[in-house]
Amino acid sequence: MFDGLTREAVVARERELAARFEAQLEAGLALDLTRGKPGPEQVALSDGLDDVLGGDYRLDDGTDVRNYGGLTGIPEARRLGAELLGVRPDEVIAGGNSSLTLMYEYVLNAWLNGPLGEETAWRREPGPLKFLCLVPGYDRHFRITESLGFELVNVRIGDGGPDMDRIEALVAGDPGIKGIWCVPKYSNPTGHVYSDEVVERFARLARRAGPHFRILWDNAYAVHDLDDDPPVLANVMDRCRAAGTEDSVVLFASTSKITRAGAGVSFAAASPANLAAFTKHLGVQTIGPDKVNQLRHVRFLRDAGGVRALMRRHAAIVRPKFELVRRHLEDGLGAEGLGSWTNPRGGYFLSFETPPGLASRVVALAAKAGVKLTPAGATFPCGRDPDDTNIRIAPTYPSLDEIDRAMPVFVNAAALAAARRWLESGTVSV
Amino acid sequence: MFDGLTREAVVARERELAARFEAQLEAGLALDLTRGKPGPEQVALSDGLDDVLGGDYRLDDGTDVRNYGGLTGIPEARRLGAELLGVRPDEVIAGGNSSLTLMYEYVLNAWLNGPLGEETAWRREPGPLKFLCLVPGYDRHFRITESLGFELVNVRIGDGGPDMDRIEALVAGDPGIKGIWCVPKYSNPTGHVYSDEVVERFARLARRAGPHFRILWDNAYAVHDLDDDPPVLANVMDRCRAAGTEDSVVLFASTSKITRAGAGVSFAAASPANLAAFTKHLGVQTIGPDKVNQLRHVRFLRDAGGVRALMRRHAAIVRPKFELVRRHLEDGLGAEGLGSWTNPRGGYFLSFETPPGLASRVVALAAKAGVKLTPAGATFPCGRDPDDTNIRIAPTYPSLDEIDRAMPVFVNAAALAAARRWLESGTVSV
Repeated sequence: MFDGLTREAVVARERELAARFEAQLEAGLALDLTRGKPGPEQVALSDGLDDVLGGDYRLDDGTDVRNYGGLTGIPEARRLGAELLGVRPDEVIAGGNSSLTLMYEYVLNAWLNGPLGEETAWRREPGPLKFLCLVPGYDRHFRITESLGFELVNVRIGDGGPDMDRIEALVAGDPGIKGIWCVPKYSNPTGHVYSDEVVERFARLARRAGPHFRILWDNAYAVHDLDDDPPVLANVMDRCRAAGTEDSVVLFASTSKITRAGAGVSFAAASPANLAAFTKHLGVQTIGPDKVNQLRHVRFLRDAGGVRALMRRHAAIVRPKFELVRRHLEDGLGAEGLGSWTNPRGGYFLSFETPPGLASRVVALAAKAGVKLTPAGATFPCGRDPDDTNIRIAPTYPSLDEIDRAMPVFVNAAALAAARRWLESGTVSV
Repeated sequence: MFDGLTREAVVARERELAARFEAQLEAGLALDLTRGKPGPEQVALSDGLDDVLGGDYRLDDGTDVRNYGGLTGIPEARRLGAELLGVRPDEVIAGGNSSLTLMYEYVLNAWLNGPLGEETAWRREPGPLKFLCLVPGYDRHFRITESLGFELVNVRIGDGGPDMDRIEALVAGDPGIKGIWCVPKYSNPTGHVYSDEVVERFARLARRAGPHFRILWDNAYAVHDLDDDPPVLANVMDRCRAAGTEDSVVLFASTSKITRAGAGVSFAAASPANLAAFTKHLGVQTIGPDKVNQLRHVRFLRDAGGVRALMRRHAAIVRPKFELVRRHLEDGLGAEGLGSWTNPRGGYFLSFETPPGLASRVVALAAKAGVKLTPAGATFPCGRDPDDTNIRIAPTYPSLDEIDRAMPVFVNAAALAAARRWLESGTVSV
């Protein structure tokens, strides 16, 4: 970065960037690139949910969804979840409006009551309990295990998935590591998709790990493809079955980013043994999920084909936003190499890497100029990015026009931070 | 019971009852008096929920309920919950479809993270943790505290509420008692309503109890009156405020038995300090409740007046069912005094007391003749009724015709069990 430039040239560049920054301050923008939320046009795609029941509240088996019962969700919704997650319907629970809640409850139950009964409870183990966190990753995953007292261990993710050599070595060396958080397709925030080899190695991971190790496979973006010819994620449950490790994986998904954010249906999938212990725990705290909303979803989405058709409509809205973000990054930063970024083929985020130690500075500069970014570090356990390089960009919620006004601020902030670092220390990288 | 009868007379009576029992066996009934569920006509009263949005998803403050956000529920729903529970809107959380889940999460958080922060966590206390359970009571309450390892202590409930002398003595003598489960109005299953004096003594209870004692005030039947001139429950939060104990009570309610069972909106209410700690816990596991369903409810119910009008329509359906149950009990058992029962003025249950040691026998006889009753003991912690006398009767779900066919079986079973006990031991009471 700024390779081969003289100090005078970098001084001139810094002045130019600072002048543009001053002009941006004047403009008084108030834009937001933080929110991993669908845009207004996206949620409107599912307004049909409200007409779809038409006064018919009966399931195929005669159940009236307006009354109590059905702890594991309606059979129709479990079938839909099975299609989405690539498992059998009897391996699926259809839950309430939040897959995050199912994840919390799964981890809580494994810790408190045991993933397979009382004698397997994680909290009964002698040593300190640990959980592997792929970074950069999803802060809400990390916070669940943090809140229950787990020590969090970072492992880097890259193209094709995480560093499996390191993961295998870690779990083999420490039986206190009870599990790992994964977003296997369009990983939040990098957009990486796990390769077939990585999925296969995950399926065999429990053989090396301590007792009752669990892979939490949050397939949040299973169908959230931007391209017509999307990457295909290998089926982890099939591979676990083949490896005899089907108790080691628990899958999650929801329709929050298919129909309505925070008002959809969630799914958890696991082996029958896992599911039986988990359902017993759920039965202590609820009589069952909202079956009316599950029926709405099944009638509206119909099946995996219906979901795919809806997701093509989402893609038509979202893809131009990702493309616009990328164009600004390439035009503004590509030539000088002032940062790198991922090019996801789906999901809700892309991930930007500043030179070491600059992410929080870039975020602060952009904030001054009226563009809110996800706080630097937010994609790491406890909010601490050891290299201070990662910035998560969420293109879905703002309009194209808002992106077109926000990205020049981001690009200028990234370049300005780099130029100032160069002038301070004679280099940008550490 | 059978007072003054000769042995011959009771033998004759037993034969008559046994003959009727044989005839009932022949009839091959399959009826169910176990389910504390609204009947089909009741849930149909709220079918308007599905038309009420009419494509308008905006709150008064402009929020789009189809997208993420709003951990404590929409302001409109919090206001409705505040009216129902007699508290301020800022003291209310509007949650998902299950108040039982809010109760579980409240107790879990108090145990795990502390009701008012880390240093108040119940699990850090040295002695064994205990919880008071009013009996007969609601098994799902008891199971929550049982599942978290609490020792459960029974206290009897009667007309006007529980035995407050005993409760005050217990909490004063044992700081390990962390709380008490209450259903203050139309208590499940007896239908008792707490008197003003009992509410006042609850408001002062924390002064005698150990640290961070909590009264879990499940006002599940706050508006579920059968009469036009219903009993009025004193406002516990107002009285706690006056006594300076507002941190000691947490209130719960839901619309499950107002609109749709298992597809309504739940509420928790507590002091701002309690609520802040609880909300922090909820924020680990969800981005928020289903706001679309909350908005449906607010538009459909409007306010407390709208709720009351709807509840009059429920009462018109439910009251004849309670009356029919009572008529059968009075006609069949009243003259001989073969049992006693409560006469609730609201709620979902009535409670029947057999002579000591006969409840499970009555339930077994009725089951043989095709009438399913809630298992004897189900209204006690761990399913153990020390006197084996209590049977819960749920009149709401079966039709009038079904009640009219089921109750003679129940009545006959109660009398037959008593006659056989008299013949075995020369007396019915122990």
